[in-house]
Amino acid sequence: MNNVEFNLVYNAISFAIAAFGASTIFFLLQRSQVSPAYKTALTLSSLVCLITTYHYLRIFESFNNAYLLKDGLVIESGMQFNNAYRYVDWLLTVPLLLLEFVLILRLPHSETYKKGFALVAASALMVLLGYPGETLTIGFAKIIWWILAMIPFSYILYEMVYGIGMSIKTQPMIVQPLFKKTRLLIILSWSFYPLVYILPLLGFSAFVSIQVGYTFVDIIAKSVFGILIYIIAQRKSEIGA
Amino acid sequence: MNNVEFNLVYNAISFAIAAFGASTIFFLLQRSQVSPAYKTALTLSSLVCLITTYHYLRIFESFNNAYLLKDGLVIESGMQFNNAYRYVDWLLTVPLLLLEFVLILRLPHSETYKKGFALVAASALMVLLGYPGETLTIGFAKIIWWILAMIPFSYILYEMVYGIGMSIKTQPMIVQPLFKKTRLLIILSWSFYPLVYILPLLGFSAFVSIQVGYTFVDIIAKSVFGILIYIIAQRKSEIGA
Repeated sequence: MNNVEFNLVYNAISFAIAAFGASTIFFLLQRSQVSPAYKTALTLSSLVCLITTYHYLRIFESFNNAYLLKDGLVIESGMQFNNAYRYVDWLLTVPLLLLEFVLILRLPHSETYKKGFALVAASALMVLLGYPGETLTIGFAKIIWWILAMIPFSYILYEMVYGIGMSIKTQPMIVQPLFKKTRLLIILSWSFYPLVYILPLLGFSAFVSIQVGYTFVDIIAKSVFGILIYIIAQRKSEIGA
Repeated sequence: MNNVEFNLVYNAISFAIAAFGASTIFFLLQRSQVSPAYKTALTLSSLVCLITTYHYLRIFESFNNAYLLKDGLVIESGMQFNNAYRYVDWLLTVPLLLLEFVLILRLPHSETYKKGFALVAASALMVLLGYPGETLTIGFAKIIWWILAMIPFSYILYEMVYGIGMSIKTQPMIVQPLFKKTRLLIILSWSFYPLVYILPLLGFSAFVSIQVGYTFVDIIAKSVFGILIYIIAQRKSEIGA
């Protein structure tokens, strides 16, 4: 890692702390602007951003303990940079993001529970299967874990398009285009993670591309996604849906 | 402790901080979604998680002062890892968890006080009797303290099944299955603690299995339990029960 790369990672992580901290407060405050049926979705948006803020603060701390930029040179301290923070974060936040989407559809109770439970289980499994491969920098085993994690991910994509995604047609006309955009955002941004994951195998500098790549896509998949969820909740509240 | 074990404990504790911090805010916010009769139960859920967040922050600090991972090796600093934090935590949170369960039943005032007092006293006694044995790693004395702590624990289990547990039959039909699941969760997750407690006697690496085991079961017994309590409170509020 040279000093340009050091600064890129350093500033990306700090940017994430500011973005997620502000997002947390935004969703907390705007919770009052939606009807009771959608307040839980807004609660979850703020929790996702709170958990992420915590983890980016820890990542920042870990990065600064592991690397030092002095006299224009990056020095390794010998302390470990803890890569697991991201996976611990996703284990909590990824299921909550899917629950946000389920809750905003306002399906019958039984369906909310059934679909909610299946998506929470699939997404937790996806993160747990992804971690062992993330720690391997190269090779066959990394690909095997990647394929295993892609199985629950494929189920989630299937639900988004054909399962729960079909419920979009029963939503009020005014919010259907927003729902489609939100779904597209999940599909595109979430597909970015398995791409970043295999970047090292394609010859990219693993550390810098993974840190900056995951940070960028985290902001899209959590903050920007949460804002779309909020706009849908607010529109549906306005028309009493 | 090797570096894999170090990371397992480190990440489990950090995971708990994020999970309990988020749970605290969840119960605080969702308190607005239940009728006044159940707001106290939600308040207690958030306090349990707040107290636990505090203690996991202290455990994390204590762990990082006692152990250091440098150049891939775990170094002991000579500073004490304070194991008492968990017992201080349980002394406060275990009685509150039982009160949550009593409050959500919405019994007559006199019974709430009588059963609440008995369960608070028994659970505090259980934690106080458990601590002396936890500090002993092996031997006869550890078993004696374990047996002593099992006496109030047996009373709590008895109350859950035959005492206060019988009140589940008087609950609205729609929430009875949820009540049974919540009771089962208490019985199973709480039974896990005395098991983790005696793991060292069965030849398991005491430190790692105890730290990871207690952390995992804490999340089930506090956060997941609290979510079930919230769902019951919300359902009962909806039907005006």
